[in-house]
Amino acid sequence: MGDNFMDKQILSSIYHQKFPFWDSLNEADKEYILNNTAIKTCSKAKTIYDSSDDGGVIIIKNGSLRMYMISEDGKELTLMRIHKDDMCILSASCINESISFDVFIDVEEDVEYYFINNQTFNNINNKYSVARIFALETTIECISDMIWLIQQILFMSMDKRLAIFLLDEISRTNTDTVMLTHSLIAKYMGSAREVVSRMLKYFENEGIVELSRRGVKICDKKRLRELTI
Amino acid sequence: MGDNFMDKQILSSIYHQKFPFWDSLNEADKEYILNNTAIKTCSKAKTIYDSSDDGGVIIIKNGSLRMYMISEDGKELTLMRIHKDDMCILSASCINESISFDVFIDVEEDVEYYFINNQTFNNINNKYSVARIFALETTIECISDMIWLIQQILFMSMDKRLAIFLLDEISRTNTDTVMLTHSLIAKYMGSAREVVSRMLKYFENEGIVELSRRGVKICDKKRLRELTI
Repeated sequence: MGDNFMDKQILSSIYHQKFPFWDSLNEADKEYILNNTAIKTCSKAKTIYDSSDDGGVIIIKNGSLRMYMISEDGKELTLMRIHKDDMCILSASCINESISFDVFIDVEEDVEYYFINNQTFNNINNKYSVARIFALETTIECISDMIWLIQQILFMSMDKRLAIFLLDEISRTNTDTVMLTHSLIAKYMGSAREVVSRMLKYFENEGIVELSRRGVKICDKKRLRELTI
Repeated sequence: MGDNFMDKQILSSIYHQKFPFWDSLNEADKEYILNNTAIKTCSKAKTIYDSSDDGGVIIIKNGSLRMYMISEDGKELTLMRIHKDDMCILSASCINESISFDVFIDVEEDVEYYFINNQTFNNINNKYSVARIFALETTIECISDMIWLIQQILFMSMDKRLAIFLLDEISRTNTDTVMLTHSLIAKYMGSAREVVSRMLKYFENEGIVELSRRGVKICDKKRLRELTI
């Protein structure tokens, strides 16, 4: 019971940090969520969720998840990585019911996560409009980022264009690091700084580059080359 | 003034129908929205909105709008058509601020629309959580439909595959109508009925086919052929 009490205190401070509405809940409802939080684990490469599943809210304790879509011929497009301390609300039914596209979530590194089941989360959402508004706003940001990414990759071929640019640069300078600011890269590519920065961030999440003040270090030349095809 | 009074009654009944939260507003706030609704017109082929504009809520009285995205080499992908009586909430700033992708809205047929400006809509959204929740939920449905469409077209080439199937069928049967149910089309294509139905609906909105109980009538063979390239 000592342990349990400790866990609840930790959990409570996590929720306090993650849910801007936490302080609006009465004590009984806070307890209700805490009591209905499970700690789950899942090992690498398992699919823990697809759109047909019964979901809930996930907060990563350790490890990481990858959300992606998959084409009929098996091509995958990574939409988002969910790391330690990140929250994923898309799989909650209150959100999922109004979502009409298919995503999958895989375990990328063995994962341990806090899980609030649908029933609990729905009850809170129905009782507190601040909670519902938070869930909806978080979702809009999340799927709007997805549209941005899909636009850039599938419609603008921005991943391909950036890959070609970076490979040209390291070949020209004979190094593994492109020592240019994002603004300059954007200028040379005829694009916008924000687009380049977000796409570089995506590459970094994919483990293809490493970003620092010095510039863009290429970590996985092979995958960068694959993007140019 | 008689006219004005009439207009307000009509407008009030439109809002009653469009906004599930209408009856939750007090009379003063209903008046406030009605008094801050403008009737605007815009003629064909003008862009009435891009993401950088100051927006608001649009309800179409007559005519139609087209929402699309555009690639750097000028390729367009129609995401949605907004017809008579449809509402568009995406352009409202309370929503727009959390949206990070770019869409454009063009006038397709001379349009007359009711327009609630951002300030008015925001004030109501801040005062009534039911209004905010409605705006957010409507947005999620709308952009989730967009992701579905982009997925199917850019990632699955479902528009291309369906176009090829339909052209093959009318060539085989030597008619202009494919007399098969959506389920059967899906079965033959190795897809799901829902995917086929939604994509056919998209084709219909694009003026490429006409759907009826008899089947799928091809109205614009030229555009259907263009999709197969």
